[in-house]
Amino acid sequence: MDRQTWIDRFEQGDLRALSRVISWIENGGGDVPAELKPIFSRVGRAFRVGVTGPPGAGKSTLVDGLSLLYRQEGRTVGVIAVDPSSPFSGGALLGDRVRMNRAGVDPGVFIRSMATRGSLGGLAEAAMDAADVLDVFGKDVVILETVGVGQSELDVARAADSTVVVLVPESGDSVQAMKAGLMEIGDIFVLNKSDRPAADHAADELRSALELKSDMGAWLPPVLSAVASRGQGLPELMDTLKQHHRHLAESGALREKRVQRRRQRIQQITEKDLLARFWNPDRLARRDQAAEAGENPFSVAGELVKGFPGKKEDI
Amino acid sequence: MDRQTWIDRFEQGDLRALSRVISWIENGGGDVPAELKPIFSRVGRAFRVGVTGPPGAGKSTLVDGLSLLYRQEGRTVGVIAVDPSSPFSGGALLGDRVRMNRAGVDPGVFIRSMATRGSLGGLAEAAMDAADVLDVFGKDVVILETVGVGQSELDVARAADSTVVVLVPESGDSVQAMKAGLMEIGDIFVLNKSDRPAADHAADELRSALELKSDMGAWLPPVLSAVASRGQGLPELMDTLKQHHRHLAESGALREKRVQRRRQRIQQITEKDLLARFWNPDRLARRDQAAEAGENPFSVAGELVKGFPGKKEDI
Repeated sequence: MDRQTWIDRFEQGDLRALSRVISWIENGGGDVPAELKPIFSRVGRAFRVGVTGPPGAGKSTLVDGLSLLYRQEGRTVGVIAVDPSSPFSGGALLGDRVRMNRAGVDPGVFIRSMATRGSLGGLAEAAMDAADVLDVFGKDVVILETVGVGQSELDVARAADSTVVVLVPESGDSVQAMKAGLMEIGDIFVLNKSDRPAADHAADELRSALELKSDMGAWLPPVLSAVASRGQGLPELMDTLKQHHRHLAESGALREKRVQRRRQRIQQITEKDLLARFWNPDRLARRDQAAEAGENPFSVAGELVKGFPGKKEDI
Repeated sequence: MDRQTWIDRFEQGDLRALSRVISWIENGGGDVPAELKPIFSRVGRAFRVGVTGPPGAGKSTLVDGLSLLYRQEGRTVGVIAVDPSSPFSGGALLGDRVRMNRAGVDPGVFIRSMATRGSLGGLAEAAMDAADVLDVFGKDVVILETVGVGQSELDVARAADSTVVVLVPESGDSVQAMKAGLMEIGDIFVLNKSDRPAADHAADELRSALELKSDMGAWLPPVLSAVASRGQGLPELMDTLKQHHRHLAESGALREKRVQRRRQRIQQITEKDLLARFWNPDRLARRDQAAEAGENPFSVAGELVKGFPGKKEDI
């Protein structure tokens, strides 16, 4: 079957076609096939939830439970689970096999794990494209699940309308959250596995830390307790997500977030195209020759971009 | 004092001027001051050692001990310790204060901690520029110490001639190393704190994993045992680094690594200049307008780069 046929089936709501389209993006190394580009005009209907937190916090279990709750309300759900744990082997260590038992048994919940191929930057980009595809496919809720460690994963979380930070009550975890910058990006905090000792203390500690933040605006991120493996706390999480969504919509922040996301996407695609055009064989040869000769890198760069038209009228 | 005066002092070997110059780079957000650019013609004399591994593996202690051994041989040492643990607060959590007791008491060892400001990518770039500055300053050995978690830190480690991966013998650690891609980048592995139980087993496990790698070439990464806090294993590490250096020099790989590094640096600076010229007010306005209107990002990108001269002769 050719690409256009797959895209036609995608437009008809075919799940295999959806899976295929996401594979193109995942394997494309940041390149989106030409035939697929038109669908990106229709991005922007889904509500996007980012779920992040340290490894072992129970993010997958929580996302599965949340997905099923949305399903019970009749909403369709798409999940992109970013697994950056294997940047070199080319496959997810906790790949799709582990996730066979996840919410995916319900055809209304589409779950896709994406692992790093090459750079984390490429992964973040592919995950965001895949989220756009789920949005266009018609999923009501798109969940981006990532491990909150590196900058790129934080970028993925920021691509969401609402970001849920999942932590566990072990001592030191809230300090870790501060370190990883998770405090700054969370709209809602969930203290998972909160049947463990010290859960109350950890929740209080988190609340205090959040209240200290100066730039809170109108939304003080709530700290919820959950035991995701038993479904506890998940209805409250869904309600809080709805409240946050309403808050965003009413304050105009939802629209601004979406415009900002489109702005970044345009910039990203433009820069990629531009650099691909710039590095023609002549310029690559000049770069390589200068590197061989040990020329001053700033002088060579200045020479290469010299005369480049800065003004729009010039090109 | 103006910049040129600081640079003159830097050229005379003044340590305060070295510190000042590195601050310019650290605070410049990826921009190198114009007056400083000429010195980058003289990069390429120092032997560069990357030291990476998970948090708590004892990298700092090992780097300090190794630095002192190099000093005992009469070599000067510069250390750039990258601390990415605080991407948002704007300062290192384990900053310079903690490192007051480090090898830095010997004026022949210059130690600088760099924390993330803004993006990790910017940090990796600044760390590499700082390593270049130490090289030009005349340090014989430049050590880049990073936490081995994200892609950018791996990039920093790859900027070295030899990369040392420091692990601890706790069970599961070698699996973690696989995950983080550390196996692929290590030229030498050090099992630190190897007075702990299970150290021998962990070393064997690591060796087996390394032997399974298909693309080993002529250098099979050795696995050394150390107790860095007592200085044990550090003379062996220094000897092994010398062997690796000799191996790189004799095989031609050392020269190739350095050319490759210069090539990447030229490309990086060129692209930064190019993009700064490209995003003039007209193009930024078009991008923002398209984002507001929800236009197809690929169409807008195509329009923005249309007519951009791909061939060198065209500009």
